[in-house]
Amino acid sequence: MKLEEFKNPSVLKNYSKQDMADLAEDIRSFLIEKLSVTGGHLGPNLGVVELTLALHQLFESPKDKFLWDVGHQAYVHKILTGRADQFDQLRQYKGLCGFPKRNESEHDVWETGHSSTSLSAAMGMAVARDLKGTDENVVAIIGDGALTGGMALEALNHIGHEQKDLIVVLNDNEMSIAPNVGALHSVLGRLRTAGKYKKAKEELEQLIKKIPAFGGKIATTAERVKDSLKYLLVSGIFFEEMGFTYLGPVDGHDLDDLKENLLYAKKTKGPVLIHVLTKKGKGYEPAENDEKGTWHGLGPYKIESGEVVKKPGPPSYSGVFAETLKKVARDDKRIVAITAAMPGGTKLDVFAKEFPDRMIDVGIAEQHATTMAAGLATQGMKPVFAVYSTFLQRGYDQIVHDVCRQNLNVLFAIDRAGLVGADGETHQGVFDIAYLRHLPNMKILMPKDENELQHMIYTATQYNDGPIAVRYPRGNGYGIKMDETLKVLPIGKWETLHEGSEACILSFGTMLPVAQEAADQLASQGISIKLVNANSAKPLDEELLHEIAKANMPVLTLEEACVQGGFGSAVLEFFHDHKYHSMQVKRMGIPDEFIEHGSVGQLLEEVGLTSAGVVEQLTTMLPRKRQRA
Amino acid sequence: MKLEEFKNPSVLKNYSKQDMADLAEDIRSFLIEKLSVTGGHLGPNLGVVELTLALHQLFESPKDKFLWDVGHQAYVHKILTGRADQFDQLRQYKGLCGFPKRNESEHDVWETGHSSTSLSAAMGMAVARDLKGTDENVVAIIGDGALTGGMALEALNHIGHEQKDLIVVLNDNEMSIAPNVGALHSVLGRLRTAGKYKKAKEELEQLIKKIPAFGGKIATTAERVKDSLKYLLVSGIFFEEMGFTYLGPVDGHDLDDLKENLLYAKKTKGPVLIHVLTKKGKGYEPAENDEKGTWHGLGPYKIESGEVVKKPGPPSYSGVFAETLKKVARDDKRIVAITAAMPGGTKLDVFAKEFPDRMIDVGIAEQHATTMAAGLATQGMKPVFAVYSTFLQRGYDQIVHDVCRQNLNVLFAIDRAGLVGADGETHQGVFDIAYLRHLPNMKILMPKDENELQHMIYTATQYNDGPIAVRYPRGNGYGIKMDETLKVLPIGKWETLHEGSEACILSFGTMLPVAQEAADQLASQGISIKLVNANSAKPLDEELLHEIAKANMPVLTLEEACVQGGFGSAVLEFFHDHKYHSMQVKRMGIPDEFIEHGSVGQLLEEVGLTSAGVVEQLTTMLPRKRQRA
Repeated sequence: MKLEEFKNPSVLKNYSKQDMADLAEDIRSFLIEKLSVTGGHLGPNLGVVELTLALHQLFESPKDKFLWDVGHQAYVHKILTGRADQFDQLRQYKGLCGFPKRNESEHDVWETGHSSTSLSAAMGMAVARDLKGTDENVVAIIGDGALTGGMALEALNHIGHEQKDLIVVLNDNEMSIAPNVGALHSVLGRLRTAGKYKKAKEELEQLIKKIPAFGGKIATTAERVKDSLKYLLVSGIFFEEMGFTYLGPVDGHDLDDLKENLLYAKKTKGPVLIHVLTKKGKGYEPAENDEKGTWHGLGPYKIESGEVVKKPGPPSYSGVFAETLKKVARDDKRIVAITAAMPGGTKLDVFAKEFPDRMIDVGIAEQHATTMAAGLATQGMKPVFAVYSTFLQRGYDQIVHDVCRQNLNVLFAIDRAGLVGADGETHQGVFDIAYLRHLPNMKILMPKDENELQHMIYTATQYNDGPIAVRYPRGNGYGIKMDETLKVLPIGKWETLHEGSEACILSFGTMLPVAQEAADQLASQGISIKLVNANSAKPLDEELLHEIAKANMPVLTLEEACVQGGFGSAVLEFFHDHKYHSMQVKRMGIPDEFIEHGSVGQLLEEVGLTSAGVVEQLTTMLPRKRQRA
Repeated sequence: MKLEEFKNPSVLKNYSKQDMADLAEDIRSFLIEKLSVTGGHLGPNLGVVELTLALHQLFESPKDKFLWDVGHQAYVHKILTGRADQFDQLRQYKGLCGFPKRNESEHDVWETGHSSTSLSAAMGMAVARDLKGTDENVVAIIGDGALTGGMALEALNHIGHEQKDLIVVLNDNEMSIAPNVGALHSVLGRLRTAGKYKKAKEELEQLIKKIPAFGGKIATTAERVKDSLKYLLVSGIFFEEMGFTYLGPVDGHDLDDLKENLLYAKKTKGPVLIHVLTKKGKGYEPAENDEKGTWHGLGPYKIESGEVVKKPGPPSYSGVFAETLKKVARDDKRIVAITAAMPGGTKLDVFAKEFPDRMIDVGIAEQHATTMAAGLATQGMKPVFAVYSTFLQRGYDQIVHDVCRQNLNVLFAIDRAGLVGADGETHQGVFDIAYLRHLPNMKILMPKDENELQHMIYTATQYNDGPIAVRYPRGNGYGIKMDETLKVLPIGKWETLHEGSEACILSFGTMLPVAQEAADQLASQGISIKLVNANSAKPLDEELLHEIAKANMPVLTLEEACVQGGFGSAVLEFFHDHKYHSMQVKRMGIPDEFIEHGSVGQLLEEVGLTSAGVVEQLTTMLPRKRQRA
């Protein structure tokens, strides 16, 4: 059967061992080929081919529920559930999503993108099942990296306590996106080498019986010793302590081993954790030998050579951030960089090369990272937490309660702010302005380009009056000339790029080229537009806003972020707080909906954040006679 | 020495055993007496008298850092650091804060209020110390309840990995605010009965040496067995697995035992966890025998009788919520109630009595609670997460990513919304509108009184199109008549309480009496005010807003929440989105600062949210001739 003909995974029930092996091979070839064109999460998916096959052969999706934590490893599941024919459009506008998506298939019962959510959701499904009296299996598949996220640990604790029937497949590939950190990682390391638990436990039981002392001298502790057998081998003890039956470690590329353990788990009462060892990139040499995490998620590549197609381009915003921080850190010993499992993505790996002791990777743990930064700040350090906009959502309470409330000098370098493209709606960084702006003491800056970014990062490191956030987009800068000397920018002082008299565009951050193009276009029609690089959403440039208000100029605000409660709303609030009640204000930004995947250009087009959109809006705001012109 | 004369805890260095015992007794009498008048967290503080004394005798605060998790148990620390004389004003307006407060004392190095933050902050301080090359001790004191919070687990994982010198004092009183849940709680339970670890380990080492088999038959595993000695007793294994040296359990009311272990911890390299068993309410019988958690935190009481002074009053909002939910749940099997360690505070304990299987207490784990609710909703259930506004901040990302993005039917019953009074700035529920309003699919309601609350809860249970939040304040309703039959309210349809022509007040939720009083006062001056119970911040009542805009009436919005990005901003955004550019809008709410403790009345006065404030603002908005009148 061709992969495109797979409609229902139930056909796997009749597959022989050889059929399964052949299918695994077909799927690998398919993935390697398709992703070489579209890009995508190759490594994680090659790692779970056998695991996904075993799950679909032994369980009955969608009656049985599979929850793919993070979700970038669900491609094989998508193939087996009738979506192979859509892989040419993977992660493209209106095409197949790179993560599980409920409206794509009844087999996608839980949507993900952020990590560590699957155990909580699975627990919800298990509780629902037991209340309804049905008998489906609930299986969460979670990586060793995602397990360090606090919410996964909260869920482990709760599931272990409630003893619901629920299977956790721990997909241990010894790294998530970057090599893992954390004590749990060491626990797994010991387990990997400890040998198989079930078998060893049985052997030891026999052995203990033969030790004479256990019948005599230490009889009083015999009961405890017996109960403690499972602890003697160290295996699985962490999970057993948490109330789970531990099975494993299982070879994640051996279908027989997988099936034996999955069947055992299915029959076991209460929560079970199956520890499955997989190899990221399995079956494709360049991806198997990946040390830098290149093959975790990537763009197009050449299959034969394993060469990743790189578009040459200007430095990325992340790169400019990291290089700047490195420069500053040479003289400023207070600086400590923090990442939550994203040393590569944030480019802090570059920083760590020069300052290994001053870069801390906490693993997937944004809450801990935020409050650890606060702790550092209380001691006079200058912590810099580089984090994607969408992931910082996990640290919201810590920003409120620990950082802003104590007014501590934490610098949030908010990467991937705005639309992110192919990763889609779970990853769009569009809420940060709205979730930070209402917090007392917070400052929120965004540069218009990479040169302003370096000055802004420098400025933020020199700012010592409390928390400050600098947000910048995914991807590359414009290739403009970089100043050689870093300078401190006045915070809350916007830059008027050119004067104008008929209307004003206040552009926040990297929307500036769109604003510039619109202004130029209107200028060519003889319409005079004041163009402002409004590089700070909090504080606002109050002096300039008073000027604009006194000139009673129509104002258009522009931001690549949700329009409700965002930068434009701040401007609106300002005018009304200062009793400028007759100002025309049009706020442009992301509308009140989740934005799916596609190229950033396509998405901006979709929501009307284009120069044509700006021209159209501005035109309606001009006095009537000008509108006709 | 009188307690009021304590200025520096270093005097304890010279205290004899008897001196310390006498001091402990004095402190207990002092707390029992003072709190009988002011109220406060009696139980937790009586439980840590010896622990706090031992810490201050053996360490050097403020050079050594004490981080009190949650912080309501820091009264003894406050007494020993020169603040006994301020206990008459405990938790009162401008008086001593009920939590550690950096501006009160150099001995308060970390502010808390929310739980589970101390380990992350301690790690930050330890990292700072090592980078600076200083040698202070960092000691986090955390309760067994707070340990189940995901961020504490993230921190444990990271600290265990980094092996920094850091002491965690686990203050295990077998309950936080309510009896604990979770597998970790069982782990602690086993430890409590397992006997002392250090001693038992030594004994067992001797014993094992005598077993002949260990020299012969199982020689190959001997090394492992030796390494695994610590596992043989089950003691501390969870923490040892996490990379900590485990000490304990220690009798938390035995100063010698405490000091011995603290000294040992001080000398031990790497992270140490001291497991201290304490008794909440120790030394005051009514509090010791507390089963319902009454004595955790409470108002005034009579010392002799242990009778808690209760002001008779109308039912609390929490009570109305829980009773309503119970009523609805009788017919609606989909309803599942969830709390994160607050069964008493949210009154879900009332619900649980009738529906024990349908009330789930997940422990301090708001992230897990939120996503578990989402999981329940995918299976057609109607989960109701009752949670304090300030604690729901912990679930922000889960609300965005799991609930709103998947548009799942989760009902958030947001308790303690608005100002909360004596608990102060860490607990004010003033950000929820701003952190929820920008999320697609979310609905945000607030009733004007307890009768509307019951209908609103009913309405929300009947709403099946996605997430919905009903927020309501701390404390009691007005005692108004409750309708007997529940009815579905039209969502997004506000209630005009009386018509008026000169200005309009849009009051969100329980600010209504303030608005009413202002409107009445203006009416008495012949000024006609339209008064609207705007009971939904999202969606807005667009029809009504169009009407108001067309009448070009000045609008004053009123909310007990932060004014930036809140309900008033939504109204402002609406007017501008619909090109009503000449509307006068005044937004009243909590200004852009953190609000400290005090009675709600005092705090509202401070921020100008009073009828006089409303009258003053409205007056300036009227046409000039009316202002003169």
